[in-house]
Amino acid sequence: MKEIIVQKFGGTSVADIEKIKNVAKAIIREKNFGHDVVVVVSAMGHTTDYLVKMAHEITEKPSSREMDMLLSTGEGVSIALLAMALQAQGCPAVSMNAIQVGIMTEKVHSKARIIDIKTDKIKRHLERGEVVVVAGFQGVTEDLEITTLGRGGSDTSAVALAGALSAKRCDIYTDVEGVYTTDPRIVPNASRLGEISYGEMLELARVGANVLHPRAVETAKQYNVPIRVRSTFKLDNPGTLILGVDNMELHRPVTGVASDLSQLRIVVCDVKDNPGTAAILFNGLAIANISVDMIIQSYARKDLNTNDIAFTIDKSDKEQTLRILEKVKAQLDFSNVHVDDKIAKISIVGAGMIDRPGIAAMMFKTLADLDINIKMISTSEIKISCIVAEDKAKEAVEALHKVFNLDCDEIAEVKGDLPDV
Amino acid sequence: MKEIIVQKFGGTSVADIEKIKNVAKAIIREKNFGHDVVVVVSAMGHTTDYLVKMAHEITEKPSSREMDMLLSTGEGVSIALLAMALQAQGCPAVSMNAIQVGIMTEKVHSKARIIDIKTDKIKRHLERGEVVVVAGFQGVTEDLEITTLGRGGSDTSAVALAGALSAKRCDIYTDVEGVYTTDPRIVPNASRLGEISYGEMLELARVGANVLHPRAVETAKQYNVPIRVRSTFKLDNPGTLILGVDNMELHRPVTGVASDLSQLRIVVCDVKDNPGTAAILFNGLAIANISVDMIIQSYARKDLNTNDIAFTIDKSDKEQTLRILEKVKAQLDFSNVHVDDKIAKISIVGAGMIDRPGIAAMMFKTLADLDINIKMISTSEIKISCIVAEDKAKEAVEALHKVFNLDCDEIAEVKGDLPDV
Repeated sequence: MKEIIVQKFGGTSVADIEKIKNVAKAIIREKNFGHDVVVVVSAMGHTTDYLVKMAHEITEKPSSREMDMLLSTGEGVSIALLAMALQAQGCPAVSMNAIQVGIMTEKVHSKARIIDIKTDKIKRHLERGEVVVVAGFQGVTEDLEITTLGRGGSDTSAVALAGALSAKRCDIYTDVEGVYTTDPRIVPNASRLGEISYGEMLELARVGANVLHPRAVETAKQYNVPIRVRSTFKLDNPGTLILGVDNMELHRPVTGVASDLSQLRIVVCDVKDNPGTAAILFNGLAIANISVDMIIQSYARKDLNTNDIAFTIDKSDKEQTLRILEKVKAQLDFSNVHVDDKIAKISIVGAGMIDRPGIAAMMFKTLADLDINIKMISTSEIKISCIVAEDKAKEAVEALHKVFNLDCDEIAEVKGDLPDV
Repeated sequence: MKEIIVQKFGGTSVADIEKIKNVAKAIIREKNFGHDVVVVVSAMGHTTDYLVKMAHEITEKPSSREMDMLLSTGEGVSIALLAMALQAQGCPAVSMNAIQVGIMTEKVHSKARIIDIKTDKIKRHLERGEVVVVAGFQGVTEDLEITTLGRGGSDTSAVALAGALSAKRCDIYTDVEGVYTTDPRIVPNASRLGEISYGEMLELARVGANVLHPRAVETAKQYNVPIRVRSTFKLDNPGTLILGVDNMELHRPVTGVASDLSQLRIVVCDVKDNPGTAAILFNGLAIANISVDMIIQSYARKDLNTNDIAFTIDKSDKEQTLRILEKVKAQLDFSNVHVDDKIAKISIVGAGMIDRPGIAAMMFKTLADLDINIKMISTSEIKISCIVAEDKAKEAVEALHKVFNLDCDEIAEVKGDLPDV
């Protein structure tokens, strides 16, 4: 049997009939390289928005079951049209929705997780030389209830399918040319990365690089499926390969720099230093489904027996968080709450920074040289994030991008030398 | 268990969000009468046309499998939105597509026939007090291939579902107020029929009364499901009840008059009068899937040993029929072919004409009095059709409508008296 490539095309790539015909060409091109091809597509362009709009004209709170029924029709249209476009170009093809394939999920509407993917029917079609066009974003439960996978759903469908089929690679076609060292809209010198590890990609996705949903990357890591992110509109550009760190050569200590302006910082002052204080606070937020990113608790001031707790949340959770703080005020006995919503989280990410402590120092020195005050710091094995003032974000990213040799005129020559601190 | 009513709403009835909300009201109204309600809907308004248009922008001849995949998404949208509208009005509801219900069909794309409908899931939802909203027009094969039922498909879905569920009645909601004695656009005096038998409805449908597809009527006859045709927009109008003749009181000998301008007549002249001649001709047409309606073979002229064969076909089959005649010319040895495409088929239909021979004579006399020449005649137990010149059609229908007491100012008083010839 031939090696299988899974190709995923997002809504922008199949937004109209001409684009669908072009996507068919990209598929046939891959097939002509000698691969069996399974394609995952999203709904055309703004179809999903349109369906959501109709639902909201009927009711403010449509049931999630019926929303899933409704939204799953979007991919139903794109898979059939793409199969027709392939057939029209002489390539045998067949479209399949989630029920037909058997993309089995848990019974949770609007954000189901995939439990199992049946591959027998797909393989039978591949054996007949057909391209199989599968509806992304949707799944089905054991009792034939239709589910959807939530954000990043089609990427996850594609990667999970690649895993189930033991595919050689999962190619995610999108409207960007790959993964960049930082946002090219902020730093024009940003360069496309040839390779990046799952871990680095995950950290980058979490700090605001919206190329690929973290769920898809985690699924790829789990099945060890290499992902290639590439542009639908520039087929000669090889894009960025995302794969296990064992398969990589780690030339650079830092792979990317990201800034995230979506958070705000809350400081709860003079909290009584009793056991369980933090638990009361963060349990309240967890119950309300509010994600807390960074948390810092200051050393208790022995004389006062209080300390400060600072944490960051998404800006959209501000009002709800303040309400929850009001509720627990009596229990926690804090003095007051500061909200700082003019912050930026600046992160550097790189699998190469493991066991290289100089990297963190280098980051802090770079910011210090620019007179940028660091308000909070958090680190993981392959990421260092600093909270700084929002108006310093661009300057910080540019400086870090330069100091870690990520500017595009330099990246070609970098051979893994650690810059001096 | 409560009695079940199946309601079917066509594309016009669910063409936009406001109309969907109104349909929800009509459903709740029926439920409040104390019935369990199963609803069958078509795709919204022009959705199907739009999907077909996109397919044809991709390829002139899309495969029928992929067309079925594509078109079935149309009902996927309308069922979900209608279920949401019901929920928003406080009525528990659940939408189900053909796969979920188990509307099993033969494996033929674009015109599959229903083999079986599973009712267990629907019944389970009804027991919970939910309205079940089912996608019309679509089916599924044993190996989960999606099929569509072709013309009149949603009507057929509804009637078959009513049969499978032993429903009390199947209500077909449409944009007309019922079945009329003739086309009200031609004869303003046309009156709505309170009742009509399956047989009469079938004959009327075949001669051009487009209220209900013959397939749906045949299915209803088979399961003995009463159908009510009524207007979505005038819920107080009782519409027309279509049911078995045993349940009817036959007041009128003639129930309706119809004219059909879609046919043309072909006369094959001087065919050698040998056994098998007609078989060669009509077998050729059958293989090409051309439906022949009326056939008349003249008496053979003993002196010449030839006769003429005249038949009517749909105008759209003209070119293909002429090509087939050209092919069999040598075998049949005819002299020439006449095509007459300025004809109308005028039919009177009525279960009450059985065993009343005066009806045919009355029809012929009425036409003769108007100097209308009859070119062909065919009869069934409950129908008499005459081919006349196209430009005489309106005059003929009006006269027949009047002579058989169908004008709306008379119909109320008619008590089954046979008019004198």
